[in-house]
Amino acid sequence: MSSNQKSAHTIENLYDATDLITQEVLKRYEQTPDPRLKEIMLSLVKHVHSFAKEVKLSSKEWLFLMQYLEETGKWCSPGRNEFMIFSDALGLSMLTVTQDYPRPAHATEATLVGPFLLENAPQFAMGTDISNGAAGTPMYAKGRILDTEGQPIANCVIDVWHSDDRGLYDVQDDFEKSGPWGRAQLTTGANGEYTFWSVLPVDYPIPQDGTAIRMLRATTGRSWRPAHLHFRIQAPGHRQLITHIFDKNSKNLDGDAVFGVRPSLIADFVYHDNGVAPDGKKMDKDFYTLDYDFVMTR
Amino acid sequence: MSSNQKSAHTIENLYDATDLITQEVLKRYEQTPDPRLKEIMLSLVKHVHSFAKEVKLSSKEWLFLMQYLEETGKWCSPGRNEFMIFSDALGLSMLTVTQDYPRPAHATEATLVGPFLLENAPQFAMGTDISNGAAGTPMYAKGRILDTEGQPIANCVIDVWHSDDRGLYDVQDDFEKSGPWGRAQLTTGANGEYTFWSVLPVDYPIPQDGTAIRMLRATTGRSWRPAHLHFRIQAPGHRQLITHIFDKNSKNLDGDAVFGVRPSLIADFVYHDNGVAPDGKKMDKDFYTLDYDFVMTR
Repeated sequence: MSSNQKSAHTIENLYDATDLITQEVLKRYEQTPDPRLKEIMLSLVKHVHSFAKEVKLSSKEWLFLMQYLEETGKWCSPGRNEFMIFSDALGLSMLTVTQDYPRPAHATEATLVGPFLLENAPQFAMGTDISNGAAGTPMYAKGRILDTEGQPIANCVIDVWHSDDRGLYDVQDDFEKSGPWGRAQLTTGANGEYTFWSVLPVDYPIPQDGTAIRMLRATTGRSWRPAHLHFRIQAPGHRQLITHIFDKNSKNLDGDAVFGVRPSLIADFVYHDNGVAPDGKKMDKDFYTLDYDFVMTR
Repeated sequence: MSSNQKSAHTIENLYDATDLITQEVLKRYEQTPDPRLKEIMLSLVKHVHSFAKEVKLSSKEWLFLMQYLEETGKWCSPGRNEFMIFSDALGLSMLTVTQDYPRPAHATEATLVGPFLLENAPQFAMGTDISNGAAGTPMYAKGRILDTEGQPIANCVIDVWHSDDRGLYDVQDDFEKSGPWGRAQLTTGANGEYTFWSVLPVDYPIPQDGTAIRMLRATTGRSWRPAHLHFRIQAPGHRQLITHIFDKNSKNLDGDAVFGVRPSLIADFVYHDNGVAPDGKKMDKDFYTLDYDFVMTR
């Protein structure tokens, strides 16, 4: 050893053990000026360190995790956040929704937003077909946006988005060329009603090409979601509601890959072999109808 | 509410409270076939959920986190993993190194790898200048790679990488045009010696343009690293060593942004105003010398 190294021991700040490192890091994050950020960072450091200690994370596993996170970033694109899929698959999204939006009395429950919401969806008039070329069995959806007294709410902005019959979303398709489809923004009138035509959503697995699916295949083995429509409803004077309506005939209601199912959000997508739809349209082939009212909280 | 919703309540699987969600998620991850992965996933779910509950993470904060992770992914590139910088800044990297590579008796300590290691660095002969145009004061480094009995080790592959006098690495520069520089792979001969010329590393802040620096500015306020050389040493029959040698004259030894300093890794970068360097080279301007021996463990 060279003589240079001996002088080193005059520095007192020893990190001999993992506990000392945790203490040192917490001491540093105690300096965070914003009280809420400080609370979050101290809890985060504590739990990240506890996790690494509990499993005695190795350098090799740490490197795998770092490379996995980097790769996860590469799967993100407008309308697809692969980190959200991880959060969904770990139950973090539903946990957050549940504690932030506890089941409201006499109102519609929330569920997770999922990775495919796009801002500035195309606007459609009520009653029109939002499928925009998506393949699938026709579906007519209608219902009302109500307050907790049962009164209709006008000027609600409803975002709806859903899969086609392949179980894909427009953002998973050749979006530049064919999208958006199965995605719309609708605004309610004085009667609080919404109506639209589209195609029936189907059960689907989470994206097959990302990092989250690899994790699920190696762990829970459950990667499918039950068929559903996504809704985001912004009603004047009310709390924004992000939720799904699930198809009660889905085989995956008990094994949703992302833990998103809530019993009150399961509805009947009613089969019709042909005939006259609720809006008077004559249908010469099979179609489905959905009738679901949303109740908003202030 | 439409009559469709009533049928929903036949499904038993209620997630009424956050604890039920955590239980449900843990039950699912219990299915993980690989025992080590199962151990890691159960601990990860438990700590991620505990964190979110402890701080009562809101949907808005969750969304911020998801977008922050997505943006962090965008800052990654070959030779720069922004997630590693986060891991470093949260003390996770040093915690992992410490528990995976506890301070070895009579041997050189490890420290974090940092985000800038590149595989397949350019190979140089011992004694040559690896700076490749990097700006800074000339530095001559030498030492030996020894085993714990003090015997030299031949055929060690040494990776060395460091900053220039701006505090930047080649991967932060216009790498396509000017890199690599300040980066080399050297192989020891029978005497176990290494020698090279380069430029003196300086103190620097972590990258100024990513997400990690924004987090540190809002929290610890400490974003600087003390001047150091990075080494990765692969010696036949010995454990790979990843470490730094720190400059004892640095002002940031007590406040390293990433908690990487270990007293035994602090060394004297000796100043010379001009004259003859240890390898016989005549210097007509200032230069520094470093003499540091590495001791490897089996």
